[in-house]
Amino acid sequence: MLSFKHDIPTKLYFGEGQIKRLAKSLEPFGKNVLFVLGGGSIKKMGLYDEVIKILKENNFNITECDGIEPNPRITSVKRGVKLCKENNIDVILAVGGGSTIDCAKAIAVGYYYEGDDLWEMVKTSFRRAKALPLVDILTLSATGSEFDAGGVISNLDTNEKLGAVYTYPAVSICDPTYTYTVSPYQTAAGSADIMSHIFEGYFSRTMDSDLSDGISETILKSVMKNCKIALKDPTNYSARANLMANSSIACSGIPEYGKQETGWPCHAMEHELSAYYDITHGVGLAILTVRWMRHILNKDASATERFVKFAKNVMGLSGDDERALAFAGIDALENYFKETGIPMTLTELGIDDKHFVAMAEHANIGGYLKDAFVALTNEDIVEIYKACL
Amino acid sequence: MLSFKHDIPTKLYFGEGQIKRLAKSLEPFGKNVLFVLGGGSIKKMGLYDEVIKILKENNFNITECDGIEPNPRITSVKRGVKLCKENNIDVILAVGGGSTIDCAKAIAVGYYYEGDDLWEMVKTSFRRAKALPLVDILTLSATGSEFDAGGVISNLDTNEKLGAVYTYPAVSICDPTYTYTVSPYQTAAGSADIMSHIFEGYFSRTMDSDLSDGISETILKSVMKNCKIALKDPTNYSARANLMANSSIACSGIPEYGKQETGWPCHAMEHELSAYYDITHGVGLAILTVRWMRHILNKDASATERFVKFAKNVMGLSGDDERALAFAGIDALENYFKETGIPMTLTELGIDDKHFVAMAEHANIGGYLKDAFVALTNEDIVEIYKACL
Repeated sequence: MLSFKHDIPTKLYFGEGQIKRLAKSLEPFGKNVLFVLGGGSIKKMGLYDEVIKILKENNFNITECDGIEPNPRITSVKRGVKLCKENNIDVILAVGGGSTIDCAKAIAVGYYYEGDDLWEMVKTSFRRAKALPLVDILTLSATGSEFDAGGVISNLDTNEKLGAVYTYPAVSICDPTYTYTVSPYQTAAGSADIMSHIFEGYFSRTMDSDLSDGISETILKSVMKNCKIALKDPTNYSARANLMANSSIACSGIPEYGKQETGWPCHAMEHELSAYYDITHGVGLAILTVRWMRHILNKDASATERFVKFAKNVMGLSGDDERALAFAGIDALENYFKETGIPMTLTELGIDDKHFVAMAEHANIGGYLKDAFVALTNEDIVEIYKACL
Repeated sequence: MLSFKHDIPTKLYFGEGQIKRLAKSLEPFGKNVLFVLGGGSIKKMGLYDEVIKILKENNFNITECDGIEPNPRITSVKRGVKLCKENNIDVILAVGGGSTIDCAKAIAVGYYYEGDDLWEMVKTSFRRAKALPLVDILTLSATGSEFDAGGVISNLDTNEKLGAVYTYPAVSICDPTYTYTVSPYQTAAGSADIMSHIFEGYFSRTMDSDLSDGISETILKSVMKNCKIALKDPTNYSARANLMANSSIACSGIPEYGKQETGWPCHAMEHELSAYYDITHGVGLAILTVRWMRHILNKDASATERFVKFAKNVMGLSGDDERALAFAGIDALENYFKETGIPMTLTELGIDDKHFVAMAEHANIGGYLKDAFVALTNEDIVEIYKACL
């Protein structure tokens, strides 16, 4: 078990009706609020009107920054920072999924960024000392942005999608009923995203960090169970609540405490897919994950022990032949993804091999995936991409 | 799954050598440090000298408040508050186990308490708005005081031992090597304490809070495994590290998120034992827990489902007869406690039934244990105490 630091200052209000905490959560920071939101989904479900009503009743001054994209873009970050400066913003309120919250984080630190080019800020990833305070209301169980300091911003001009460390939300309001209207496709994709956050740390050489592994296995099993329930019964509170609680912990770093860092290879590879083709992040992750698993298990037999643990403790399989069991666990995972309706090839998404070499180079910048659970070369990554066709 | 709030501001530095963070952890709060410690164990292991050296090298002014008892007493709290006032203390440094940290928490809020009698403060339990900042170095895996806001203070004059909510540590330094010298008896008792923190929330009517239950089951299994390793091999880093990580999470409230509150019946009953007889908390808990389990399972058949879950997922048992399986899980737990060397009767501790009625009345003040997993009357509690003889 390795050393770790735990330092998550975010306050979570979890459960139906927690929006009652909104005004008091914003109040300590000031009256001028930048209201960051995505497309129309929060308007359709009535949440937009509810937020505006609460803000007006409590005499907040509202500046809206709407239209934040899935895979949020640097152009939106620039627009948000400009609005903050023009309107003397005291606090940012992000209402939406991970993309909206990620963008709001970049705006929060971008406000204090002293350089000329905010894309440079994204490229030099570290936790910023100064940021505008951020409160969010979560509407999608997926990225875990409500309980971590990270964010991912895309630049369509350069075909880049980069994760960076920004700032923790001060308060996250997590009401599972806001996810009742999430489509089956996005429910499945969000669940795959949660699971990928676990896979990235679970597949590690550290075998004795019991709590991390137990939390990881619990989340994987719970997501698979509750995603299926939510697909059949979208307003099942218990299923939506479990998915939401799992999403917050999965990306918090907690499931990796005490474990060797892995470089998050599937996220590195998927960010290239999203950067080039603007696909749904969780879908790209699901497609890549099972091919990555098979590739590394074929490449390095010493990975078998960890895959057997996964097959037994997560997928509920058993058997005497360890190699067969390890591969069976991956097959079972692929079947689960298929059952949830995720298209499981890049071909179905209209992606061919045209950019695979360039994407592999960028995914493995500086060759840093040599420190992954099983080391990956650029050639490995191209092979994994090809296996996804 | 019920609503919950997560709000734990404590920063944890976990792992060997994390004492290197000490000076920087204290620095932001000021130079005048109250150094709170227990008996001689931190002197024997050299930690006392190391702390003094770091404090002196970094020009802190040290006021010592030593001799904090196991089951820390209100007299020590009063002494600490007086020292803080006399020496213009800026920050408290507690070095020791849960008793030392609990006492330091009470001193931290006692410093700002405006009433005349600090025992009144203990009796009116709520989180105080103002407290001196607290940094701690943990030397025992047991109470979880390093990662919660609570503390338990005893009053020998009134035979009372009361838990109260005080303040979170700002920083906890958790180095598993500081527990290498913990005796087998205290290792076993501390492990029983960790497990009890889980049992108190795990046995609940809420069956759909997957993450809480998964974390709980993980901690129980890990504590049983690693306690046995540590008993045989006291300097096994991995075992000591797992016990320490488990202790911090077990009492944090996290394993109960989304679940119905239970009133923590075993702690209520054990505090009476410690108040009357000053016994080791974890030992009292182990003795009580198995009798409490059998009593409520006999009293209420609807508890069977939860006990079956425990027998299967924690104790690794199986069987078709659910009632038999439920009781077998409790037997297996009792065997585990015996194997770790815990005396499993009150008689062995020299306790008879003299005060059971008074203790039951006080443990169930206001009849609040009617809301436990299985409701407990004073008569139930007396029966549970008697079964422990």
